[in-house]
Amino acid sequence: MSAGALSLGVCYYPEQWDEALWAEDAARMAALGLGWVRLGEFAWSRIEPEPGRFDWDWLDRAIGLLGEAGLRVIMSTPTAAPPKWLVDLAPEILPVGADGQRRKFGARRHYCFSSPRYRAEAARIAEAVARRYGAHRHVHAWQIDNEYGDHDTVLSYSPAAEAAFRQWLGDRYGEIGALNRAWGTSFWSMHYDAFDQIELPNRVVDDPAPAHLADFLHFSSDQVLSFHEAQAAIVRAHAPGRPVTHNFMNGNTDFDHHGIAEAIDLASWDSYPLGNLVHGRLPEAAQARYMRTGDPDQIAFNHDLYRGVGGGRFWVMEQQPGPVNWAASNPAPADGMVRFWSWLAFAHGAEMVSYFRWRQAPFAQEQFHTGLLLADGTPDQAAGEVARVAREIAAMPPLGSRARAPVAFVLDYPSRWALAALPQGRAGVPAHVALDWYAALRRQGVDIDIIGQGAALDGYRLVVAPDLVIAEADFVSRLAASGARAVFGPRSGSKTVALQVPEGLPPGPLRRLIDLRVTRVESLPDWSEERFSFDGASHVARGWRETIEIGEGTEVLARFEGAYRPGSAAIVGTGRWRYVATWPVPEALDAVLGAALDWAGVERLPLAPDLRLARRGAVTFAFNFGPDTLMAPAPAGARFLLGRAEIGPADFAAWTG
Amino acid sequence: MSAGALSLGVCYYPEQWDEALWAEDAARMAALGLGWVRLGEFAWSRIEPEPGRFDWDWLDRAIGLLGEAGLRVIMSTPTAAPPKWLVDLAPEILPVGADGQRRKFGARRHYCFSSPRYRAEAARIAEAVARRYGAHRHVHAWQIDNEYGDHDTVLSYSPAAEAAFRQWLGDRYGEIGALNRAWGTSFWSMHYDAFDQIELPNRVVDDPAPAHLADFLHFSSDQVLSFHEAQAAIVRAHAPGRPVTHNFMNGNTDFDHHGIAEAIDLASWDSYPLGNLVHGRLPEAAQARYMRTGDPDQIAFNHDLYRGVGGGRFWVMEQQPGPVNWAASNPAPADGMVRFWSWLAFAHGAEMVSYFRWRQAPFAQEQFHTGLLLADGTPDQAAGEVARVAREIAAMPPLGSRARAPVAFVLDYPSRWALAALPQGRAGVPAHVALDWYAALRRQGVDIDIIGQGAALDGYRLVVAPDLVIAEADFVSRLAASGARAVFGPRSGSKTVALQVPEGLPPGPLRRLIDLRVTRVESLPDWSEERFSFDGASHVARGWRETIEIGEGTEVLARFEGAYRPGSAAIVGTGRWRYVATWPVPEALDAVLGAALDWAGVERLPLAPDLRLARRGAVTFAFNFGPDTLMAPAPAGARFLLGRAEIGPADFAAWTG
Amino acid sequence: MSAGALSLGVCYYPEQWDEALWAEDAARMAALGLGWVRLGEFAWSRIEPEPGRFDWDWLDRAIGLLGEAGLRVIMSTPTAAPPKWLVDLAPEILPVGADGQRRKFGARRHYCFSSPRYRAEAARIAEAVARRYGAHRHVHAWQIDNEYGDHDTVLSYSPAAEAAFRQWLGDRYGEIGALNRAWGTSFWSMHYDAFDQIELPNRVVDDPAPAHLADFLHFSSDQVLSFHEAQAAIVRAHAPGRPVTHNFMNGNTDFDHHGIAEAIDLASWDSYPLGNLVHGRLPEAAQARYMRTGDPDQIAFNHDLYRGVGGGRFWVMEQQPGPVNWAASNPAPADGMVRFWSWLAFAHGAEMVSYFRWRQAPFAQEQFHTGLLLADGTPDQAAGEVARVAREIAAMPPLGSRARAPVAFVLDYPSRWALAALPQGRAGVPAHVALDWYAALRRQGVDIDIIGQGAALDGYRLVVAPDLVIAEADFVSRLAASGARAVFGPRSGSKTVALQVPEGLPPGPLRRLIDLRVTRVESLPDWSEERFSFDGASHVARGWRETIEIGEGTEVLARFEGAYRPGSAAIVGTGRWRYVATWPVPEALDAVLGAALDWAGVERLPLAPDLRLARRGAVTFAFNFGPDTLMAPAPAGARFLLGRAEIGPADFAAWTG
Repeated sequence: MSAGALSLGVCYYPEQWDEALWAEDAARMAALGLGWVRLGEFAWSRIEPEPGRFDWDWLDRAIGLLGEAGLRVIMSTPTAAPPKWLVDLAPEILPVGADGQRRKFGARRHYCFSSPRYRAEAARIAEAVARRYGAHRHVHAWQIDNEYGDHDTVLSYSPAAEAAFRQWLGDRYGEIGALNRAWGTSFWSMHYDAFDQIELPNRVVDDPAPAHLADFLHFSSDQVLSFHEAQAAIVRAHAPGRPVTHNFMNGNTDFDHHGIAEAIDLASWDSYPLGNLVHGRLPEAAQARYMRTGDPDQIAFNHDLYRGVGGGRFWVMEQQPGPVNWAASNPAPADGMVRFWSWLAFAHGAEMVSYFRWRQAPFAQEQFHTGLLLADGTPDQAAGEVARVAREIAAMPPLGSRARAPVAFVLDYPSRWALAALPQGRAGVPAHVALDWYAALRRQGVDIDIIGQGAALDGYRLVVAPDLVIAEADFVSRLAASGARAVFGPRSGSKTVALQVPEGLPPGPLRRLIDLRVTRVESLPDWSEERFSFDGASHVARGWRETIEIGEGTEVLARFEGAYRPGSAAIVGTGRWRYVATWPVPEALDAVLGAALDWAGVERLPLAPDLRLARRGAVTFAFNFGPDTLMAPAPAGARFLLGRAEIGPADFAAWTG
Repeated sequence: MSAGALSLGVCYYPEQWDEALWAEDAARMAALGLGWVRLGEFAWSRIEPEPGRFDWDWLDRAIGLLGEAGLRVIMSTPTAAPPKWLVDLAPEILPVGADGQRRKFGARRHYCFSSPRYRAEAARIAEAVARRYGAHRHVHAWQIDNEYGDHDTVLSYSPAAEAAFRQWLGDRYGEIGALNRAWGTSFWSMHYDAFDQIELPNRVVDDPAPAHLADFLHFSSDQVLSFHEAQAAIVRAHAPGRPVTHNFMNGNTDFDHHGIAEAIDLASWDSYPLGNLVHGRLPEAAQARYMRTGDPDQIAFNHDLYRGVGGGRFWVMEQQPGPVNWAASNPAPADGMVRFWSWLAFAHGAEMVSYFRWRQAPFAQEQFHTGLLLADGTPDQAAGEVARVAREIAAMPPLGSRARAPVAFVLDYPSRWALAALPQGRAGVPAHVALDWYAALRRQGVDIDIIGQGAALDGYRLVVAPDLVIAEADFVSRLAASGARAVFGPRSGSKTVALQVPEGLPPGPLRRLIDLRVTRVESLPDWSEERFSFDGASHVARGWRETIEIGEGTEVLARFEGAYRPGSAAIVGTGRWRYVATWPVPEALDAVLGAALDWAGVERLPLAPDLRLARRGAVTFAFNFGPDTLMAPAPAGARFLLGRAEIGPADFAAWTG
Repeated sequence: MSAGALSLGVCYYPEQWDEALWAEDAARMAALGLGWVRLGEFAWSRIEPEPGRFDWDWLDRAIGLLGEAGLRVIMSTPTAAPPKWLVDLAPEILPVGADGQRRKFGARRHYCFSSPRYRAEAARIAEAVARRYGAHRHVHAWQIDNEYGDHDTVLSYSPAAEAAFRQWLGDRYGEIGALNRAWGTSFWSMHYDAFDQIELPNRVVDDPAPAHLADFLHFSSDQVLSFHEAQAAIVRAHAPGRPVTHNFMNGNTDFDHHGIAEAIDLASWDSYPLGNLVHGRLPEAAQARYMRTGDPDQIAFNHDLYRGVGGGRFWVMEQQPGPVNWAASNPAPADGMVRFWSWLAFAHGAEMVSYFRWRQAPFAQEQFHTGLLLADGTPDQAAGEVARVAREIAAMPPLGSRARAPVAFVLDYPSRWALAALPQGRAGVPAHVALDWYAALRRQGVDIDIIGQGAALDGYRLVVAPDLVIAEADFVSRLAASGARAVFGPRSGSKTVALQVPEGLPPGPLRRLIDLRVTRVESLPDWSEERFSFDGASHVARGWRETIEIGEGTEVLARFEGAYRPGSAAIVGTGRWRYVATWPVPEALDAVLGAALDWAGVERLPLAPDLRLARRGAVTFAFNFGPDTLMAPAPAGARFLLGRAEIGPADFAAWTG
């Protein structure tokens, strides 16, 4: 598969269907234009129906039939759902809730990442599956496990987790005195004499020490990573030349997605725009507007994130094909949205889009989750749209890879854990605040890469870090050495790795860049607003406000208005750096970040509120998430490859020139 | 007692009062016009103060005094509140919560229906009480236990429940393969090898298999039924000629009330209109309007339900006499409402209305619950109103039984469990949706019978099934063979008994009647609305929308409007059947169900919003729940038996002719 | 220290800082004008790093340095945070939650008041500390433990608590029959045969008997008291002449603060106006108005309460110096508020105001809690304001003690437990209702003493009891014998000590004063309103309404309006007594309580809504909590000691004459 080639796929569960259907299913998949089929991620009990007895025949036949129909198989390790016999043999593999109670078999993800027994069993089954199919001629890629973190399963309060956490702390701190200093145990008499005294931070009378909690979050993330790495190594050993991936989710920050990048060959994620809209950041009026098209920025955010996590390569492993079953409400996508979302993924650099699932299940938990086909095998909305996408792909000139974007957007997982461990009140949901910043940039029509602190910074004109609580010295050095300009949000650099106030006050290491001290922070109620003046206009901020003191070389770009400390600096800057000391509301972010783009020399194109752009190779895509027909911001003489200049509701266009 | 005779009663607790008061209490009851007195449902610890030692003397005397005063005693088995000594002897009788923790003694209903030990103890005490009083000359009826399901006590997660559930599943499925197929365990590797592997569906990491959950709900209902049946058999053996009943509650669907009908001789229920209003379906403005009169339809709904459950015979065992103690807020009924509610019950076919309770308790949990008398023995509001009802009964010509209503309304408990197990989002509370449909019919002035699928259908002109998720083939056949027309709500026929999508898609067995396939369902947020055109007007629906495909013989009666799939069918019909593919709001239900009544040839009389009618024998009753004086819709020359043509606020009238 | 002298202090944690900083810290404290420093309340693990090994040296040096700098030390017993080694040795000292699960080490207050082992350990460490520093020349006062009740730690459901509760019940009731009668166990078959059968009232299927719950609350309060008394006795034995105190909190009613008065020499409390505003009673608009100044009445309420608890003497042990870390949102105080709150405390009679804390911690749970200094040692807002207060104190003539106020306001803890045990619905938060009444009186410009039922009543002109559910006979007698007039709120006298309806109906013992029977109570939804006419105007009440019957000598002062029982008495009176049968909203309370002040001959001065007065000795203070400049209600010729007649936003003035 050459970089830049586009293909389509589907998730299929032969174990759920009468074998008589398989051949016809395979033929219909191929006829629709699908090239990939994912198998097996929940098939453990079918593959190994009793301890040590493997039943490969059915799967051999399924893979054979699919492969012969021209489909490339993505095989999975089935560790996301251990069978009942294993749970009964070794109940200690089950996760334990924050209430101290062991969870039960009966759904999925019922395992504790810290269980040594489960790690051994997972390696055993992964080895067996990889040995069987690793080098199979129809198997062209591998998925490890399924959706780490779904159903809040990264954290487990089991005895195994406690033992592993003690070990992890020992490795991290070396001696207990270092832990005492890091956690600040001189406070509230929390002193520890030995690592073995440390417990998991649940059922504590008040908040535990923030570093205690943040270390537990960090540890839990590391457990996911090492769990994954073990399987990836096994699979890679048996599957030469086949890329290994994992299907990530929207919005999960329970483990460090950048950290897992080494142990995957490309990233993939599961895109459910409407379910995520319902549980997302938008106020009701906006949710109503996008009820059948999705949050215009949340989907793209994930594409831009996972493109980075995958080192430039990503797939959509599961694409919503119609209504789902799991959100608080489950509206249908507008007709055309399956095609729309597919091209949105391609525009952001996806190589493959795979739909979940082939045929709607008539039983079990997800029977209200649609597929390409209805439960009776007749086509649903998505089938026709997918066939159309396949035809469009065939007619599309090669798009190439996405170029490096002019703007880098920093998402740092340890900073998110710091915000969870030290929220300072209930104001603001970190993921929502960050997405608001991202959305404001997108409304300016610019392309964005989402990066971690470890990423190379070459070529970026602007780096935006809305919530980089823990700024690493190395990152700051490389940023200083780069040609980029940067805008930092409030709380940036405000904590050390041990979640302490940095020497010299926040923004800690960023003070190397900009002469500034944060002398006060306030978390503010939702119903209050702060105003600030910027560029001659008065703007609104909410939820967070800092009082800052600046050095002589630092310029005040915006000042707070109102009764409290009027004239106090709201945005300051020096040279290539800007610091925003509050959370501007979306309209205010348009002004602040729009000006930052100009300042950084990034060409921008302010868009109609419902429109979004994405560029890949020579092609520009414009997506209309709203209910009105809008004009594509295409130059005169543009050549339209898809759609046309008038973009209807829930439609898009693509052009060159 | 002849059918159609009306009488009054009261709930009395001699064990709570000094014996010196009993004789005077009995005399005052009789003087008020009360004919019945319920005793003993919480008296176990007084009857059997220590294991095996019975103290009958006090109860003999109490029954004697009451009987000699002319009161007929309803005796109860006291199993709703086992004594502390029994709990201490056998703590395994206690129920276990979903958190796995055993609940404690200290209130009531602290038993697990699956405990073999408790079943033995319940049989033992029931036998003792029934042997003593079964054929007592003053004991004229029996109540088994008290308010099954109160305080969410039908479900218990005890080891005994787990063992019994496994047995129940074994009986239901015969072999484990059948269970695996029914539950769809090929999904998520949920395969079971043996019934003994199955656990109760609590503390599962994500939703359990819906059939797993629905089977547990069904099992739990069956446990209530068999618990009841055992006691009913004991009592019947000792109490020849005395009707056996149980006092059901408003809104409890945790067990199948139709299923218990064989094991009672008449139904009774406990009517607390204001407490239930507070916890009910109405928006705030309507709650404010009816704050002191009650939901105009919820009370009647229960009367119509329990009339059916009792095979045509029902009592109100506990009638609210004033403010209660247990709701989120506890306003007083308007003066006159105790009389109003009493006649509302009689109008709907009640034979007896019994007030809870004789005298307000000055101690314990319900000391804020009013009675006919205040705690100091002086009369409260209800006393005078009850005396007036007694006089009115005496002056009233025999009403006879309620005639079969022209409209049958289907309430199917397994369908409600299906909705609980597979809610598909948070849109809509099933009980509220159904009550909205019932209310719309009642606003048309028609009488309604509430039935289960097993009921005889002869004589009904219209059958309305708002949420018959699991439509039984036998019911469909009998409906087809009847002369009735029917209106089905969305989701009707959408699941098999095993909670699977039926072959050929929903509405499954209803496709025999109407050529229709549901190809998509959507659950929608509260703040969104869908519009549809019907009968030349545009109407609003909320919460649920289906896309349906129809055959040639099927007519589209209403079409969706708006941006999403405009013109898609919202209501369709063929011959005697109609299917509504959404949840019309109340105003829209008036149009849709009003038209259905006309179509079915049911005479209707659209009423002022606050007015409701009920007919019994030759008498028509009109009840005004609102704050304004309204005119009774009586024909010219009507003879008023109670009230008059101008019906004041919180008042009613009854007439013939 | 002479009564009436004013001083300042600070909370300091030498164990958290490098010893190199101590001397400079001490010098800076003294330079700011601070006279007191509190030490040691969380230092157990530093004082006794392993079982039985004490490390006094560092604390000796710290006390020495501070004392030599002129600071008087308040030493604390460190029992609020037992060290990990003790928890590991004796895990049974941990509290148990209502879910039956043992809580964990990792924050503070992780002990069960009923644990015999912890009581022994607490006595041991208190003895050790008191022996070392009781008579130390620099130690001038003692604090026992820290903030009893914080983090909901008064209630524990441990086996030790169960055993102690049984003992407590045995002591209270003598024989089990008395308990059965008091709890009303003839209801629901709840009879007990022995005290050893009684369990703690958690995990009960429905509400436990209210007397069961109330007794558990009372018992738990008594456990706090006896825990405190044991330590206070130890400290007093070693610390002659040093006052013993405890630092109470805002709004905690989990234990009887009046009951602890014997075991303290003066009261102190921890004043966090902004955090408490966020979690308090005010609607959003008022919270917005006072976001940076605090609820104008809540702070004063505590001053007036703890002045009484301390027998006329109280300190503010912890005064908020800037934003805190623990509320749902944490805004900054307006500049000037630290000075404002300090003088508000002095105006209400405080002798000392101590700020929490000296320097902001850069680590652990409270790193977002400000201090006088920032984490880097530079001054924060509070430092300059404190210095100014110190200068102002020096210039202020002696204020003397607060005179007895003309108005006494009754806060009775057992009545609050009764309201918790028998809330009768969700209408109204007792603490908020009471604070509304207090605020209405304060808006009339009068000074108030908050008292318990045991307080002497001499000299009060008006006693206001908004929620005296359990009125003691002795209190009623003393009130009758006093010269005071009284206004009682609804529910007054409505329960006996055993939480039963009193003989002759409510208001029980108050019927001695006023011929009145409450024949009905209603709890009403938030969205409903009742109206009543009083003094020629129509007023609104919410949440609670009673129907009362009066004797001949009782006059109706206000009558309900509207559809329900119009003309029914809303306020009645006889002689020196008034009874209000509903909860008037704040505006209506202004009228009702304003009239009551006139009736009682208390001079009043209705104030602008944002202004509050307080008088101490010859000086009158006026505090402006609002955003506008207001005129001080000072007489012509007043001499201003602080501020001037025009009082700016968030400012105050003080004058004589």
